[in-house]
Amino acid sequence: MGKVAVLGAGSWGTALSIVLADNDLEVALWSHREEQVEQINNDRENKQYLEGIQLNQLIHADTNLEKVVKDADAILFVVPTKAIRQVCQQVKPFVTSEQTIIHASKGIEPETNKRISEMMAEELGPEIGKGIVVLSGPSHAEEVGRRQPTTVTVSSLQIDQAIIVQDLFMNENFRVYTNEDLVGVEIGGALKNIIALGAGISDGLGYGDNAKAALITRGLAEIARLGKHLDANPLTFAGLTGVGDLIVTCTSQHSRNWRAGNMLGKGYKLDDVLDQMGMVVEGVRTTKAAYQMSKKLEVNMPITEGLYELVVNDKPAKDVVDDLMNRSKADELEQISNG
Amino acid sequence: MGKVAVLGAGSWGTALSIVLADNDLEVALWSHREEQVEQINNDRENKQYLEGIQLNQLIHADTNLEKVVKDADAILFVVPTKAIRQVCQQVKPFVTSEQTIIHASKGIEPETNKRISEMMAEELGPEIGKGIVVLSGPSHAEEVGRRQPTTVTVSSLQIDQAIIVQDLFMNENFRVYTNEDLVGVEIGGALKNIIALGAGISDGLGYGDNAKAALITRGLAEIARLGKHLDANPLTFAGLTGVGDLIVTCTSQHSRNWRAGNMLGKGYKLDDVLDQMGMVVEGVRTTKAAYQMSKKLEVNMPITEGLYELVVNDKPAKDVVDDLMNRSKADELEQISNG
Repeated sequence: MGKVAVLGAGSWGTALSIVLADNDLEVALWSHREEQVEQINNDRENKQYLEGIQLNQLIHADTNLEKVVKDADAILFVVPTKAIRQVCQQVKPFVTSEQTIIHASKGIEPETNKRISEMMAEELGPEIGKGIVVLSGPSHAEEVGRRQPTTVTVSSLQIDQAIIVQDLFMNENFRVYTNEDLVGVEIGGALKNIIALGAGISDGLGYGDNAKAALITRGLAEIARLGKHLDANPLTFAGLTGVGDLIVTCTSQHSRNWRAGNMLGKGYKLDDVLDQMGMVVEGVRTTKAAYQMSKKLEVNMPITEGLYELVVNDKPAKDVVDDLMNRSKADELEQISNG
Repeated sequence: MGKVAVLGAGSWGTALSIVLADNDLEVALWSHREEQVEQINNDRENKQYLEGIQLNQLIHADTNLEKVVKDADAILFVVPTKAIRQVCQQVKPFVTSEQTIIHASKGIEPETNKRISEMMAEELGPEIGKGIVVLSGPSHAEEVGRRQPTTVTVSSLQIDQAIIVQDLFMNENFRVYTNEDLVGVEIGGALKNIIALGAGISDGLGYGDNAKAALITRGLAEIARLGKHLDANPLTFAGLTGVGDLIVTCTSQHSRNWRAGNMLGKGYKLDDVLDQMGMVVEGVRTTKAAYQMSKKLEVNMPITEGLYELVVNDKPAKDVVDDLMNRSKADELEQISNG
């Protein structure tokens, strides 16, 4: 039996712990909050983030990072984007090059436009950094916790590390695909939130399924264009970490990004929307990051640009969508398939 | 002012007539049913197929095929797949090589596995056949009729013909992209119904968003694999006639294919489902055609194969989905990106 350290006891970290424990792996689940650790170990349930799902005895929560990481065959980071660097710094003294390093976070660092694995490699050093594996895909944590059928993708610069992670997680409810395109997998997971925002806006304006499908599809196309400039494989965006994740996000009204977009489409101001949501809307931050990247790399991203005008310059949602419909004629695959 | 002949006065033919008339084109709308023609011309509305939407004076319905087609700059076929050959035979004596030939039908001929433009080219002859343009994309006819924002793709072996069609239809509500990949556009439109069937089955089994997103995404991947063997561009399936059309179909409970799948997932037998629907479920026919093509071309299509076992051999829906989750490990882009 092996051991996996899971850093982060939110809903996704807990759901992934359940998958690992179902595969007879010992799971050391780290949280910095003492009362959460006690609650999980006493009740065998994460009441705050994954209520009503029992955790088996192979899962043990702990606040002691050294103890959690020590002797682990693999270390899985599932912390918010903004906490990635700090947790890496805390873990670094205990990590060895024999351990498999995985992350299941989605985002881009706003200041640097760096991907999660890039941030981690900077903190953990190039030797460990080059083997980092990302796990991503269409997955509500709640459904994974309830053993409903789910598929995800794993990717790494070192594909043998991705295959190790595929073996750790794969079981009858949780199907894991490998993909060699690390950049595409990470970019797709991060940028899909922009499109969820756009889909919400279209719905909020009272437009129909045709308009929403157009926004989602053309949004995917421009993410693929940006991805290609970053050396991603455009086909990755047609896969689980692109289309798949997008379907889960844009068809679920639980998505924070969709809900924020919906309110913007109904005419609310961004500040009011953010006040009312009371939490971070990742799509708003990612829109700004993607806009900066598109300008720097000179990639045509009209939907991102329109949403940027809306969230930064208060351009009315209807004007944004109407302008998108009235651009000059275009070829569908232009700038994706061609160099 | 130009003139366009629209052959087929169903909901989609009528909606496309509205777009053309909005662009100041004269529209001759053909139906073989005298009473439908009279109703449309008298009431300036297609009460049976697009109720409540007024047709302007530029649209005139007629049963006389020669009169409708004569002097038309373009002829648009919007008839069911099974009527394509017959209508082509009727029209052939009046068609000239100066006219632009368009179709907006979706399907594959079950007996021959031929695409619509291939069937048309066989009937109309190679000279006219090589310039045929397909128009396809995510588009509920009702929303197009109500001038809600919509995007579609046009494609042809002769891209100059596609550009002519782009100019005919493009306006502030109806955005038209060109795509040089005729095979991909036609295959995507036809095979998306298989995936809608699968998505309905997953929902009918009570599985969640993760499972449905997986089925849709992996279904797209295997359609792209088949398409590649037919010389389509895999990226087309990530576009409006793949992902886009799929989103409209799989997120709308009005889809006949989704509804049929949903009943199959709930345990009904196929014969009972078809009886209860009382009309053709295109996805069932297309599943059989795609299965035949996959065997002939030796393309791995596990979802199509599973659905074939279900619709032909009564394999229980739960077994089909569980088997799909328990196949051997796979790489996500295998056989799509690689030759």
